[in-house]
Amino acid sequence: MDSFHFHNPVKIHFGKGAVSHLGAELKGFGKNVLLAYGQNSIKKYGIYDAVAAELKKAKKRVFELSGIMPNPRTEKVYEGIEICRKNNIDLILAVGGGSAIDCAKAIAAGAKLKGDFWKTLFVNQKPITDALPIATVLTMAATGSEMDPGGVITNWKDNLKLAYLSDHLYPKFSILDPTYTYTMPKHQMIYGCVDIFSHIMEIYFSVDDNPNVSDDLAEALMKELIESINVALKNPTDYVARSNMMWISSMALNGIIGLGKRQDWMTHQMEHALSAFYDIPHGAGLAIVHPVYLKYIYKNSPAKFARFAQNVFGISAKGKTKDALARAGIDALRAYFRKIGAPVTLGEVGIGKERLAEIAAKTNIFKTSYSNLTLKDIEKIFNLCLKY
Amino acid sequence: MDSFHFHNPVKIHFGKGAVSHLGAELKGFGKNVLLAYGQNSIKKYGIYDAVAAELKKAKKRVFELSGIMPNPRTEKVYEGIEICRKNNIDLILAVGGGSAIDCAKAIAAGAKLKGDFWKTLFVNQKPITDALPIATVLTMAATGSEMDPGGVITNWKDNLKLAYLSDHLYPKFSILDPTYTYTMPKHQMIYGCVDIFSHIMEIYFSVDDNPNVSDDLAEALMKELIESINVALKNPTDYVARSNMMWISSMALNGIIGLGKRQDWMTHQMEHALSAFYDIPHGAGLAIVHPVYLKYIYKNSPAKFARFAQNVFGISAKGKTKDALARAGIDALRAYFRKIGAPVTLGEVGIGKERLAEIAAKTNIFKTSYSNLTLKDIEKIFNLCLKY
Repeated sequence: MDSFHFHNPVKIHFGKGAVSHLGAELKGFGKNVLLAYGQNSIKKYGIYDAVAAELKKAKKRVFELSGIMPNPRTEKVYEGIEICRKNNIDLILAVGGGSAIDCAKAIAAGAKLKGDFWKTLFVNQKPITDALPIATVLTMAATGSEMDPGGVITNWKDNLKLAYLSDHLYPKFSILDPTYTYTMPKHQMIYGCVDIFSHIMEIYFSVDDNPNVSDDLAEALMKELIESINVALKNPTDYVARSNMMWISSMALNGIIGLGKRQDWMTHQMEHALSAFYDIPHGAGLAIVHPVYLKYIYKNSPAKFARFAQNVFGISAKGKTKDALARAGIDALRAYFRKIGAPVTLGEVGIGKERLAEIAAKTNIFKTSYSNLTLKDIEKIFNLCLKY
Repeated sequence: MDSFHFHNPVKIHFGKGAVSHLGAELKGFGKNVLLAYGQNSIKKYGIYDAVAAELKKAKKRVFELSGIMPNPRTEKVYEGIEICRKNNIDLILAVGGGSAIDCAKAIAAGAKLKGDFWKTLFVNQKPITDALPIATVLTMAATGSEMDPGGVITNWKDNLKLAYLSDHLYPKFSILDPTYTYTMPKHQMIYGCVDIFSHIMEIYFSVDDNPNVSDDLAEALMKELIESINVALKNPTDYVARSNMMWISSMALNGIIGLGKRQDWMTHQMEHALSAFYDIPHGAGLAIVHPVYLKYIYKNSPAKFARFAQNVFGISAKGKTKDALARAGIDALRAYFRKIGAPVTLGEVGIGKERLAEIAAKTNIFKTSYSNLTLKDIEKIFNLCLKY
C-alpha cells in the first residue's frame, strides 16, 4: 500500500425504512432547511411525503429548490445560493441522485463564498474554508456523491462540465434506502451501474500495482456489481441486488478503494467534455468512452489488465498471451456494457464526428498512471468511439 | 445487504514516515498529553524518539504511563486514570499495539467516570457519555483497535477478560507506519496475523448470507492476508506485505466488512475466558479455538463454509459434496495456522484439561448466527482443542 490519508466523516443510515432516522439527524441542525430535489418522481413514489413528514416532525422551516436537472447546471446553483442567502438556510437536504446532491454541494460552497462560485471554485479551483452543511436522501445508485466530497456542475453556455472537491462538502449524513431505487427507469438503472463500474475502474487502473488491499476490494465490488445488475434487470424489486448496487455505489467513491492509489479519471474528463456539448446521460458517455480508452492505453500495463480479465470477468489465462488476456478483459467489459443495455458507440447516441475535435480541445488532459496522452490521442480515442 | 448504520470518524495517516503528521494533529488538543506505551521496544527501535520529537514540536507537556503488558490489566488502567485526574490530561496518545491502545481507551473512559471503571463499564456495560480523546501510533498489525471503538481488559484477580465498546472511544487519529512493524518478534507477527484472520471470520461466518458486499470484501481481505504473511515470514522487511497486513488489520474492524452482518464473536468469548486463566497470547488462543469452533458449528450453514473453502483457500468443489467442501475449508484454515507457526492445540501451549470446565463456565455464551451453544457445547469444544 502506498502512503495515504483517510478521513470520511459521513454518517450512513442504510436499509428499508431508513428515512425514519431523518428526524433525529435533523435535530443537530438549525431551523431553516433547503430541500433540493429534481423532477416529480420523488413525489410520485411517496419519497417526498416521507421526507416532508420527518422535516415536520423535526419542526423545520422548509424552503424548496426543485427541478434540478440531470447534469445540473450553473443557473440552478445560482438559484439555490440566492435562496440560502435570503433565508439563512442552516442545512441543505438533497433528495435524489447525484444531480441533486452535486447541485446541493455547489450551493453549499457558493452560499458561503464572496465571489462567483463557478469562476472561483470550478474554473479556478480555489479552496474553500467553509460551506453550509448538506445531507442527502439517496434515490439512485450511481454517483457516490452521498459519501464523497465532490460534485460536478455543467456550464452550458461555455460547454464546460467541471468537478470541485473539498473536505467541507462531505454530507453530514446520508439516508440510503434501496427500495427507493425500485422505481428508477430501467435506462437510469443501467447508466447508474455503468457510472459505478467506471468509478471503480478509474481508481483500479492506476499505480500502485503491487499487491494491495485497495485493488482486491475493487475487484470484489466489480464482481458483485456484475451479479447484482443481472438480477435487478430481471427483477427490479429484488432487495438483495438493489441493496448491493446501492452500497457498491457508495463504496466506489467513499475513499476506501482509492487508498494508496494514484487514480486515473481520464475517462471522466473525456465524458465530461462530451456531455458538455451533447446533453447525453453521464453513464451513456462512460459506457462508450471507457472501454475504448482502456484499449488505447492497456499496453502500458498489460499485467494489470490481464489480472482484471481473470479476477473480474473470470477469463481463463490458459493458452493466452498476457496481451491477449488483457484485450479479452476489455472486450468482455464492452460486451457487458452492451449486454445490460448501455450504448457502446457514439453512433448509438446520435453523435457524429463533426464536433469531436472541438470536444477533444475542451478535454482536461493530464498525465495518468499508465499514459501521457496528447490532444491528438484524445481526438483519436473519440473517433474510435464512433463505431464498434 | 441487511440494514445498518455506519460512522467511523477516525482519521488515518498511513505510510512510511507517517509520524511526521503527528505534530500537526496534536495541535488540535490541549497541552497535557499522557503517553501510554508498553515495553522498551519502542525505545530500542527509535519510535519513542520520533514521537517525543513531535510532542516537543507541538509544545506538549508529556506524562508517561509505561509498562503496559500484553492482555492489559485493570491495575494499569487504574494507574492511568490516576495520572489523568491528577494532571488534567487533554489527550491520551497510545504508542504500541492493541494492548497499549485498549488500555488507553479504558483509561479515557474511566477518567471521566464517577464510579469504578471495571465494574461500571466492563462488568455492567453501562454506556458512557464522555471520554478523554485518544490517538494512536500503531506498531503492530493485529487488533484493529486503532480504528475501532472498543477495547479488552483483563481482571486477573477474578479471571475475567472483558470487552467494552463506545462511540466515544474511536481514536481521533491513528498513525500507521508499516515500517514500525518490521522489528516485531516473529511470534508476535504470527499471532497478530491470526488475530486479524479471526476478526474477519467472526464477522464473515454470520448472517446475512445472501450475496452481500461485506462478505465479498471480507474474502478479499482474507486472501490478501494469506499472501502477505507468506511473504513477510520470508522477508520481515517487505514493505508491500507489511503495509497490506497493517491495513487489513484496520479494515477488519473499522466497521466496513461488518455492515449488514449479524457477526458472531463466540470464538473471541472462548479465547478471552481461556487467556483470563492462562496468560497465553490472544492470537495463540484464537488459532487453537477458531478452527475447532467452526468445525463444531459448520453443519448449521454448510453453504457458507463451502463458499469459504472455494473463495478463500481456492479449494475446488469438483467431486466434493457441499459438506466435504465445507470441512476441507476449515481443515485448510487449521493447516494454514499451523504452517505459519501458530499453535493449533491446547497441548502446544501447555494447557491440559484440568481447568477447562471452570473456563467454560466463565465463558460468555450467547446465541450466534449459526448456533445456539450450551455450556456443555463450550466444554466439548475446549476439550476438542486439546489435540489435533
